[in-house]
Amino acid sequence: MTIKTLDDVRGLLKDLPGLDANAAAAAAEREPQLTKPQGSLGRLEEVSSWLSSWQGAHPPKLDNPQVRVFAGNHGITAQGVSAFPAEVTFQMVANFEHGGAAINQLSKAFGATLNVVPLELDNPTKDFSQEPAMSDGECASAILAGMDAVDEKADVLCLGEMGIGNTTPAAAIAHALYGETAAFWTGPGTGVEGAALTNKADVIERSVALHKAAMTDGLEVLRCVGGRELAAIAGAVIGARMKRVPVLLDGYICSASVAPLMMMNSTSLDHCMVAHVSAEPGHIKLLDKLGQKALLDLGMRLGEGSGAALALGLIKGAVACHAGMATFAEAGVSEKDE
Amino acid sequence: MTIKTLDDVRGLLKDLPGLDANAAAAAAEREPQLTKPQGSLGRLEEVSSWLSSWQGAHPPKLDNPQVRVFAGNHGITAQGVSAFPAEVTFQMVANFEHGGAAINQLSKAFGATLNVVPLELDNPTKDFSQEPAMSDGECASAILAGMDAVDEKADVLCLGEMGIGNTTPAAAIAHALYGETAAFWTGPGTGVEGAALTNKADVIERSVALHKAAMTDGLEVLRCVGGRELAAIAGAVIGARMKRVPVLLDGYICSASVAPLMMMNSTSLDHCMVAHVSAEPGHIKLLDKLGQKALLDLGMRLGEGSGAALALGLIKGAVACHAGMATFAEAGVSEKDE
Repeated sequence: MTIKTLDDVRGLLKDLPGLDANAAAAAAEREPQLTKPQGSLGRLEEVSSWLSSWQGAHPPKLDNPQVRVFAGNHGITAQGVSAFPAEVTFQMVANFEHGGAAINQLSKAFGATLNVVPLELDNPTKDFSQEPAMSDGECASAILAGMDAVDEKADVLCLGEMGIGNTTPAAAIAHALYGETAAFWTGPGTGVEGAALTNKADVIERSVALHKAAMTDGLEVLRCVGGRELAAIAGAVIGARMKRVPVLLDGYICSASVAPLMMMNSTSLDHCMVAHVSAEPGHIKLLDKLGQKALLDLGMRLGEGSGAALALGLIKGAVACHAGMATFAEAGVSEKDE
Repeated sequence: MTIKTLDDVRGLLKDLPGLDANAAAAAAEREPQLTKPQGSLGRLEEVSSWLSSWQGAHPPKLDNPQVRVFAGNHGITAQGVSAFPAEVTFQMVANFEHGGAAINQLSKAFGATLNVVPLELDNPTKDFSQEPAMSDGECASAILAGMDAVDEKADVLCLGEMGIGNTTPAAAIAHALYGETAAFWTGPGTGVEGAALTNKADVIERSVALHKAAMTDGLEVLRCVGGRELAAIAGAVIGARMKRVPVLLDGYICSASVAPLMMMNSTSLDHCMVAHVSAEPGHIKLLDKLGQKALLDLGMRLGEGSGAALALGLIKGAVACHAGMATFAEAGVSEKDE
């Protein structure tokens, strides 16, 4: 498939594949036969059904979990929106490559293949307080990089990001899509506080106002006030949908990256679950707007896909129960008194 | 150690060992050196510190997680408080032994050793709407069974239970310890609703009133309106403290089982974390009283230690990050701008 412009992406989003009805039905038929009170595994039952439905397989499997971390740099850091210097993006990508970051440990702990995809780190997006972050072609190219990073053999895909300054585009996207004030969506990120935090919200407010006329749909929002790793995450979600790979989304930046897709097609995230709700205060508000409830709430705010990878433990538990438990008939266990 | 009476248990509870200060200090020293913004792993950092402190080891380890499920039968089921017949306790213990239950799958998924400890299933506790559930010696014996079930070589111990009818003693304990109304603490358990649910609350209200004068401390509450598997869980928490094994508690029944210990010694649960908050409505209220915040909130209400075993995934992630991540110095990553 050729993706050269955002119009090509718009075409894709008009016709996304649905879930596998046979696999969904098989999961729904098996679940109530398992030796437990109906519904007593709570959201693990939802996870099993979701995995089967989008893998197109029953029982669901977790033999090949994968993690993709997209990294980008941001011209908006010129406005003093981050507590860490931009060189940390390079340093952390090197840390990923040497196996020293949290996401390396979590991927290894859950048997997931980790790939880091740096996106033109030497060529930051434009300072979107002055001009659009990306051209149409640049944004489409980042989306395509995300699509291409999806391995159709993955049975679940964890998405994450690294990019010093990237809670600023995340908050800008949320403000552009859902209104409220910029301050409503703005938080400390890696540790901005006081006057610097007020400045961060001001920068976001002005930037969204600047591009208001140009942001005619979700993809234009992503282009004007987003970033390369955010566009790549949106692309990976599209790619995963087309390749039948269920997706676990990480924190605030991930959710902001895919919110524009929901504005284009309200079914865009049906194959995704939100792994965790971040301590970054905008995240829970954004999940409310997206109608999503996170699996984990542990006060994490690291990014890198760390929350998504951690949720693989829950997925593993759900798959083990659904696939491995005995039925009432097999175990000779009495059912509920009626 | 000889435990024959509840007075013997009272003696133990007066002098519980504390955490290992050296291991705690080593964890506290390493955590801020790891390549992430301070505090960004949220509760995973708390988990690492807790494990180190109570294992008396740094870095914390997760080589030998263990699960103990205590099973008991309850005379109170004569009052129509459960949706399942009491024979299901036997059937589910057989299901555990044959590997067919949720806890079998979860234990296997997280590499945990599972042992099921049936407690005189042929000899249910007395119907505590008529007389105390247990004698002093019976309660002490169940506590001792729990203590003896703890393996000092475990590096974390997940506790769970199986016992048709046992949300009734759980609610009765909570009502006896914390007041409110019986209805406040009473929920559907495995599926009681309507008039049967009202009856369940009435039975609890009457029973607690009946034993009011006798319930002079937490252990007397456990004896009068508890049950064998609940007493064994309390015993396992005591045994784990003495053997330096951190504990993951499961749902409502587990929390109710250990609440009496808090009334005896407010440090009793310092070596425990609550793995999940159950969908059983009394649990979140009980956690508030205990000052505990669960790690997981997934709408589960199965018991068997299923929530505790599932939380092993989080523990695994926490240990992997704390032990395996590079420090800022090792990775050459810049720290926060000051």
